[in-house]
Amino acid sequence: MSRSREFGIAPGIMPAGPRNAITDVPGVKVGHVTLSSRDINTGVTAIIPQPGDLFGDKLTAAVEVINGFGKSAGLVQVAELGTLETPILLTNTFGVGTCSNALIRWAISQRPDIGRETSTVNPVVCECNDGVLSDIQAMAVTEQDAMRAIEAAGQDVVEGSVGAGTGMIAFGFKGGIGTASRQILLQGSAHVLGALVLANFGKAGDLVLPDGRRPDPRIMAEAEKGSIIVVLATDLPLDHRQLARVCRRAGAGIARLGAFYGNGSGDIVLGFTTCNRVPHHPQADVCQLERMADKRMDDAFRAACEATQEAILNAMCAATAVEGRNGATRPLLSDWLRDGQNTGTSEPF
Amino acid sequence: MSRSREFGIAPGIMPAGPRNAITDVPGVKVGHVTLSSRDINTGVTAIIPQPGDLFGDKLTAAVEVINGFGKSAGLVQVAELGTLETPILLTNTFGVGTCSNALIRWAISQRPDIGRETSTVNPVVCECNDGVLSDIQAMAVTEQDAMRAIEAAGQDVVEGSVGAGTGMIAFGFKGGIGTASRQILLQGSAHVLGALVLANFGKAGDLVLPDGRRPDPRIMAEAEKGSIIVVLATDLPLDHRQLARVCRRAGAGIARLGAFYGNGSGDIVLGFTTCNRVPHHPQADVCQLERMADKRMDDAFRAACEATQEAILNAMCAATAVEGRNGATRPLLSDWLRDGQNTGTSEPF
Amino acid sequence: MSRSREFGIAPGIMPAGPRNAITDVPGVKVGHVTLSSRDINTGVTAIIPQPGDLFGDKLTAAVEVINGFGKSAGLVQVAELGTLETPILLTNTFGVGTCSNALIRWAISQRPDIGRETSTVNPVVCECNDGVLSDIQAMAVTEQDAMRAIEAAGQDVVEGSVGAGTGMIAFGFKGGIGTASRQILLQGSAHVLGALVLANFGKAGDLVLPDGRRPDPRIMAEAEKGSIIVVLATDLPLDHRQLARVCRRAGAGIARLGAFYGNGSGDIVLGFTTCNRVPHHPQADVCQLERMADKRMDDAFRAACEATQEAILNAMCAATAVEGRNGATRPLLSDWLRDGQNTGTSEPF
Amino acid sequence: MSRSREFGIAPGIMPAGPRNAITDVPGVKVGHVTLSSRDINTGVTAIIPQPGDLFGDKLTAAVEVINGFGKSAGLVQVAELGTLETPILLTNTFGVGTCSNALIRWAISQRPDIGRETSTVNPVVCECNDGVLSDIQAMAVTEQDAMRAIEAAGQDVVEGSVGAGTGMIAFGFKGGIGTASRQILLQGSAHVLGALVLANFGKAGDLVLPDGRRPDPRIMAEAEKGSIIVVLATDLPLDHRQLARVCRRAGAGIARLGAFYGNGSGDIVLGFTTCNRVPHHPQADVCQLERMADKRMDDAFRAACEATQEAILNAMCAATAVEGRNGATRPLLSDWLRDGQNTGTSEPF
Repeated sequence: MSRSREFGIAPGIMPAGPRNAITDVPGVKVGHVTLSSRDINTGVTAIIPQPGDLFGDKLTAAVEVINGFGKSAGLVQVAELGTLETPILLTNTFGVGTCSNALIRWAISQRPDIGRETSTVNPVVCECNDGVLSDIQAMAVTEQDAMRAIEAAGQDVVEGSVGAGTGMIAFGFKGGIGTASRQILLQGSAHVLGALVLANFGKAGDLVLPDGRRPDPRIMAEAEKGSIIVVLATDLPLDHRQLARVCRRAGAGIARLGAFYGNGSGDIVLGFTTCNRVPHHPQADVCQLERMADKRMDDAFRAACEATQEAILNAMCAATAVEGRNGATRPLLSDWLRDGQNTGTSEPF
Repeated sequence: MSRSREFGIAPGIMPAGPRNAITDVPGVKVGHVTLSSRDINTGVTAIIPQPGDLFGDKLTAAVEVINGFGKSAGLVQVAELGTLETPILLTNTFGVGTCSNALIRWAISQRPDIGRETSTVNPVVCECNDGVLSDIQAMAVTEQDAMRAIEAAGQDVVEGSVGAGTGMIAFGFKGGIGTASRQILLQGSAHVLGALVLANFGKAGDLVLPDGRRPDPRIMAEAEKGSIIVVLATDLPLDHRQLARVCRRAGAGIARLGAFYGNGSGDIVLGFTTCNRVPHHPQADVCQLERMADKRMDDAFRAACEATQEAILNAMCAATAVEGRNGATRPLLSDWLRDGQNTGTSEPF
Repeated sequence: MSRSREFGIAPGIMPAGPRNAITDVPGVKVGHVTLSSRDINTGVTAIIPQPGDLFGDKLTAAVEVINGFGKSAGLVQVAELGTLETPILLTNTFGVGTCSNALIRWAISQRPDIGRETSTVNPVVCECNDGVLSDIQAMAVTEQDAMRAIEAAGQDVVEGSVGAGTGMIAFGFKGGIGTASRQILLQGSAHVLGALVLANFGKAGDLVLPDGRRPDPRIMAEAEKGSIIVVLATDLPLDHRQLARVCRRAGAGIARLGAFYGNGSGDIVLGFTTCNRVPHHPQADVCQLERMADKRMDDAFRAACEATQEAILNAMCAATAVEGRNGATRPLLSDWLRDGQNTGTSEPF
Repeated sequence: MSRSREFGIAPGIMPAGPRNAITDVPGVKVGHVTLSSRDINTGVTAIIPQPGDLFGDKLTAAVEVINGFGKSAGLVQVAELGTLETPILLTNTFGVGTCSNALIRWAISQRPDIGRETSTVNPVVCECNDGVLSDIQAMAVTEQDAMRAIEAAGQDVVEGSVGAGTGMIAFGFKGGIGTASRQILLQGSAHVLGALVLANFGKAGDLVLPDGRRPDPRIMAEAEKGSIIVVLATDLPLDHRQLARVCRRAGAGIARLGAFYGNGSGDIVLGFTTCNRVPHHPQADVCQLERMADKRMDDAFRAACEATQEAILNAMCAATAVEGRNGATRPLLSDWLRDGQNTGTSEPF
């Protein structure tokens, strides 16, 4: 597994966190379950936003729908209430219902009052279509797979052709899971914003590296039909309005790589902060929260942009070869970067 | 099963269609599956927007999220692309994943190219929480139930404690499924707009009838934790922008009954028109469509408002007694209307 | 000047504040300038949200566009930044530019650094079209009129045919300016939410009183071409997301009176709270704020609904006769209420 | 006046139109009035979307608010009704009210029934803050200036430090007005999409050229406080939903240059098509319109992205030196491109 920086590609100007991963945000964990057989190349990736009772002590969250050609679950409620109360699961398009069911059962196992003594729970599942490399009609993901992805979660994030990223494609190359992070100083104390992406977007030939090179996968260009899910995590003191604005800036990171949010690409951003938890049963009618001054928002915006851009590059650099349905494969960006640096396209821009 | 007009309550001034139902829109069908045992009082309601290949020949559609405390599936894509490509299923909150899976399998059965030779499909499922009268943790709805609801669809709409409405509550009374319609003349030709509601909203004591009476269920008022799903169907020539505006007016119909879109109430409106179909594989780069002049929109707005208001009253008038989980019951509005007309609350407004 | 309660009409169940006015929110003031000559019946109404340096110490604010057929100024920035930094001016549709200029000059007079040493200022002006009773082409409102309205502001709110309300029409009756308020207890301490409306909406014959009566102005019904501006003020501890949700509920108050947000009606809600001020030059990168628990939001929602409904009724009850352009007049609701209580329309609903 | 292509910089892969300007869209004209004295460096730029009676025969239009830190006029109504009924004026932040008044008078001069026999008119004015180079407090722009800009409109678009662009700054360099276009073949017939930008955004040091070079203005970096207005024109058959999606893609063009929609940057996109005109007094209740198939939307999206990116580069390449308020100046990108190509920043990305 390679990362973008091993090839000398480190987009932006802000310092990365120690892992350069979403798990640099204290308490965030990531787990994968990979399903790989002849026609099935898919899986589940779980982001655990914090340990403990997520339903009882929700996280402040927000959504940005860059292009809503997508079938994610739970976004409407996050946008209205500004809270996240389950882990976030990523999977293939036809795995959303099953992963939703798994999250409901997982939440009930932790909080048996859900739906009986108190309100229901909002499962959050995002997806991309891995139908080129995997037989999506098989609906191969099970509730057990989803549970195992949650249980597998840890601080080390495996990238590339793994979990929900197993069968993904980006810019004509093999895509998948990637992550990155940026550090922000606020009143002398260190904060971090991390991104994790499920990269399945971008038309072959459109990728632009930060230095202007345009890697060509030398496959027949297809219409951009993919998608990208960006999960942003931070410990910055943000309220819902601010967090939604931060999410919007992930779109700038996507665009810097040459994409333009294609018609068929479901480009969705989901962000949360571990600051400003929201209790399910608040003890008082009024609570205190902390908010970053808007004059400092540019740091958070730039971090969201840079971390998203680098997480995508990491997903592509880490991706390993997958032979999929009907023998389909996609070239590796890492191969291009090792061998093809001087070729690119004849016209640099 | 009673209807609102049998009690002399006919909100608004526009003429109803022949069935005074969403199925007055040509081609629209509705089917129910009711699950009723001791602790389980739930079900599935299917709205088939048109016969034939919905995926291949999509309907123009739009969404209005009045209050997004809800877990519906498929709304993000409807809002972006302005199309509906499956039947609409209504069910309880924890049945959304299973009904989504059922719709995917139903769509594949009709169009085996989905997800393999062409793109995936966007299942649309809306929900309310029937947890007071039904054990929602049981996740009792199966994919087979969803399939049977689709197969059961016809032009006669059973209302009240049926299908997804089996365990619903509204304004402290028994709620459920209701429908109504309004006729609109456009250039001399007759059009219709119909509403079907899953009514599970409103705080006890808040209901106001069109004549100002306020039926009191004489139960302890609880926080409004319900929801309402409104499905609007029409054959008016509307584009996506117009249809979204029509959907917004369903909120006026809800408010006229005394509700105010409570914090815990997921109030969602989904509208479609049978005019202006959108082919999955268009034969040409440019297509023609028809659009109603905005100067005539007030008729569509008023129709959406009136049909929604009456559909809710029909749901409540038709509802029959359900003994639910832990012996819970709710009084019937039809009983109040028959017996209690002179009582109401002491303060008329 | 009469008020709705003098006719026994007091919508809702929550207690009104001592003045039953937006100025029950401590620090809020309202002023009018009325322009009335033969063909000119227009004016300016100023809401001063708080005394002192509004630009230096902004208010948390939010917007709800119910129907965007309107030409208001400043809403886009309020929606993005969640702050209000000037008084709010209400006027006729063609007075917006002039009132914006007046607010800019007023702000500079208070803060000479605006636009030179620091950023610019966002003037907030809302409007309705009084073109039936006033010659709007005359563009009669001057910057001096706007300044005088600000200077005239006090705690007593004159209602009816005054200020921006001078030439307004509602439901075929004379409309204008109205206000109302509701009290909310939060952890034992009293809070208030007040509404001020510029009521210029509603088709003749559509008005429904809380007791079900339908006052008929007995004029020829016209297409609903009016608009309504609702300004909500409160001292509740709300953040931007919450305040936007509160604003949305003003729409329920409008709908309860029989309107359905007609195509030609620009129905706009602007809300602010005097809690959680936002400094222009914050001293620290992180600030504290207070937020009401969402479980208590229903009180704020109900208050917004009830205060809006009563403010509209107050505008109509207080309105006095205006003979406008081409001799146009509109009947008074207060006359109907005094004389016509037993007539109404023959069909009560 | 230089253009980006003269320096070998031609972003994207689509062919430009014959003028490579917004006026490649048949019927679109652009005019400027430049105000330049010691402390005043500002102006007005007018885009005439089509000749003739714009109010009587409106254009289909849409808005994308990328970052709403802006004071534009008229956007709320464009978003709701999907129509444009006046020329678009661009000016400085404190000129919006005056330009709005001018547009009202201009519209009345063409259609004396406005506001008297028919409804009012929605003036559309967008702005950026030129306060560094111009004394914005002077409110120097007059209604006559706005009128003259409209009258000056023609097919040749002057770029750079002209009209509303006179005092603008971008990425620490002199900014201003720029334009570009892209051609699209639809069923064998040629269409065009053009962009015109008022570029006043971007932090010094952030600019990235398509080849990866990062021009450094060698001035002290300031917080990004600027803004960018993008006007997109096309003759593609789009409806409002499609046009709004096209507008969103202008954000990708902005991001490709290194910006991330900074907190203080009002980034607004306004688009219109000359196809699908909307009559003010439609003769029938139903009209026909044409719509491009969504499967072809990627061409329109890519065109919006590329044209925006190149229009910004053209604005910066064409900009000429302006000595502004307090002697302030900004370096020229054209100088950097001529002289400084080998310097850039030491770290290429």
